[in-house]
Amino acid sequence: MEEAAGAILVVNSGSSSVKFALFDSADPMRRLWSGSAEGIGTAQARLTASGGSPADAREAGLPDHEAALAFILAHVEEHLRRDEVGLRVVGHRVVHGGPDCDCSLPIDLPLEERLRTYVPLAPLHLPHNLAGIAAVRAQRPELLQVACFDTAFHQSLPPVAKLTGLPREYSARGVRRYGFHGLSYESVVEALRGSGDAPARGRTGRTVIAHLGNGASMCAVRDGWGVETTMGFSTLGGLVMGTRCGDLDPGAVLYLMQHERLGPGAIEELLYRRSGLLGTSGGLSGDMRELLASRDRTEAHEAVELFCYRARLHLGALTAALGGLDRLVFTGGIGAHAPEIRARICGGLEYLGVRLDDARNRSGATEISPDWADVTVQVIPTDEERMIARHARRIAEMYGHTGSAT
Amino acid sequence: MEEAAGAILVVNSGSSSVKFALFDSADPMRRLWSGSAEGIGTAQARLTASGGSPADAREAGLPDHEAALAFILAHVEEHLRRDEVGLRVVGHRVVHGGPDCDCSLPIDLPLEERLRTYVPLAPLHLPHNLAGIAAVRAQRPELLQVACFDTAFHQSLPPVAKLTGLPREYSARGVRRYGFHGLSYESVVEALRGSGDAPARGRTGRTVIAHLGNGASMCAVRDGWGVETTMGFSTLGGLVMGTRCGDLDPGAVLYLMQHERLGPGAIEELLYRRSGLLGTSGGLSGDMRELLASRDRTEAHEAVELFCYRARLHLGALTAALGGLDRLVFTGGIGAHAPEIRARICGGLEYLGVRLDDARNRSGATEISPDWADVTVQVIPTDEERMIARHARRIAEMYGHTGSAT
Repeated sequence: MEEAAGAILVVNSGSSSVKFALFDSADPMRRLWSGSAEGIGTAQARLTASGGSPADAREAGLPDHEAALAFILAHVEEHLRRDEVGLRVVGHRVVHGGPDCDCSLPIDLPLEERLRTYVPLAPLHLPHNLAGIAAVRAQRPELLQVACFDTAFHQSLPPVAKLTGLPREYSARGVRRYGFHGLSYESVVEALRGSGDAPARGRTGRTVIAHLGNGASMCAVRDGWGVETTMGFSTLGGLVMGTRCGDLDPGAVLYLMQHERLGPGAIEELLYRRSGLLGTSGGLSGDMRELLASRDRTEAHEAVELFCYRARLHLGALTAALGGLDRLVFTGGIGAHAPEIRARICGGLEYLGVRLDDARNRSGATEISPDWADVTVQVIPTDEERMIARHARRIAEMYGHTGSAT
Repeated sequence: MEEAAGAILVVNSGSSSVKFALFDSADPMRRLWSGSAEGIGTAQARLTASGGSPADAREAGLPDHEAALAFILAHVEEHLRRDEVGLRVVGHRVVHGGPDCDCSLPIDLPLEERLRTYVPLAPLHLPHNLAGIAAVRAQRPELLQVACFDTAFHQSLPPVAKLTGLPREYSARGVRRYGFHGLSYESVVEALRGSGDAPARGRTGRTVIAHLGNGASMCAVRDGWGVETTMGFSTLGGLVMGTRCGDLDPGAVLYLMQHERLGPGAIEELLYRRSGLLGTSGGLSGDMRELLASRDRTEAHEAVELFCYRARLHLGALTAALGGLDRLVFTGGIGAHAPEIRARICGGLEYLGVRLDDARNRSGATEISPDWADVTVQVIPTDEERMIARHARRIAEMYGHTGSAT
């Protein structure tokens, strides 16, 4: 089974950057290498990689995603050549799988065609994901590629949680609640299952996972299955984020159109890039670390307070969807690394049985609630790249793929 | 104090109707008469009043609010003449008091001027409220008029609950969270205080009041003060309503603009008049009674389920704002008269200590939880008109008003 030893490349293709991670096929998988091509289309384009000095890509130039992926593939294969290992499969993070994609899928032209029709559902992310897929195909047409969707985990939501309150016909036209950050939730659920903790699928466990990063959402999980989540149709709703507004009264969007005379492009810019922590802090920063460092300023303090307050309300709502809470897991950049934010979110939730052990919370322990607490509160780093690699490996195995084209 | 015996007229002026109620100045006030002028500007205009046959206003004609108020005032004063009582003050329900109005206010031209600047904040309601005020002034310029705001109760919300997640400068331009149905919440809080129950102001009590009618919202009240509510900037957000969408991902509104090519007017029409129960039930009905009667139809069932599910999530969120729950009060047309809806909202909230006594719930008792439950669940009819009358009387007393012009 020489092909089983082939490596797995994970690609997360954004607007001006492509992140990558390389795994072997062992069990558990080892992360061999990772990095990112940044500044695509700018004069500052460069490849940064773990375990070595940044490869300066300025001379090569990275005018577009195809050039970036060519550069990454060349470096990756050079890296693998030392170990005499080939590339077996490429797994892509794809933000949106539309109404039907409830699991990761091998990529072929019909799937790419279908995903293109979903671009209006995720106009800021999906075109770049598709550009990454096309770029790999252009460079290595024979390589198996797998699409891993951020929406797939939430396909288990009950029908009522997918409704929007708009007329029914809009649902058939794609306007329904989807949910995002699904690969992160799946990664945490797998980690809980691996550790023998509930909630593995099939076991009892009412869990809320708080994925708090620059983008942020929460998911209610029962027995390992997603039952509700804070993001719905787009990546705007739910929690307050770095630069995104989170929940906003639809009447406020109408007001911006009718009375502030903002067009769709200006509203999109406002809600995605100038709101959230950045907007609430009066433009100070959308980065939680900077806000915590500037907390003596009223604007910074209020932005942090809004973030934690809204997270607390959503935690209350998700707990109602679950009918109670057994476990709360923090993950994501803020969730895993900001004990003060965890403490402020949990403060006042004693009525749910949520308690923190202050020393454990500050020390970065995995379990940060006292042993006697009703709700187990944990910090579990998410590993979306590993999750994608596992999906890609599984599909390569299903297809018995040896490196030839589909 | 002959003037203290003067009657109080309460006016609720909508787009095509004017509702009125007449109270004496006794303590407690007695409701003398009430009714409504409907179909203003149509050929079917008529005055319907309690305790008598509908006065047919077709011949008189009610082309506009001024004609409707003239008709109402004439009938009201004829009604009062029998008891040799004069009209002392007119209290108006005013949907929006803008950022500053935190209590009821006597109406003068500067206030009317100020309220006109708030029309963009409540374009569907405020113009009609102002038309009612102008119509009374045109007919009886000497009468004291009082504006009672649906937003005023929520001025006690903490600053964090008034934030939207948009850039700070929008708050100064009026885009912030306000909250509505405040006169209903105040009426329920007064009823609780009058019955000796918590939460009177100054007493302990973490209460959620669910005002469920054609419009619907919930309010978290601590010690009698509002601390959070489900409606924010407009009357669209929060709970699913008869024809309004409730919470909706702002990205969905963007999508309607960009990809369904709907203009602001079409989106307003969609979100205010074609969504909610009506839209979710596929156009079947926006009336909860009709949907409950048609529950064998999937669309009706799903609309009712969405309404109850979202109410449960919001109840969870408001409980998080309160740090726990001592009391849950249902009010409004659905809240007071639909035991099945109350039961479905409370189902699954046992973790909060919410339990219903099924027999009490079905019988229409005031207290519908079992005696041993941690959370007291009550049904308390709201009386917004009486609340307005009390505000109007108080202000008439403050101003020592005897019927002369301000």
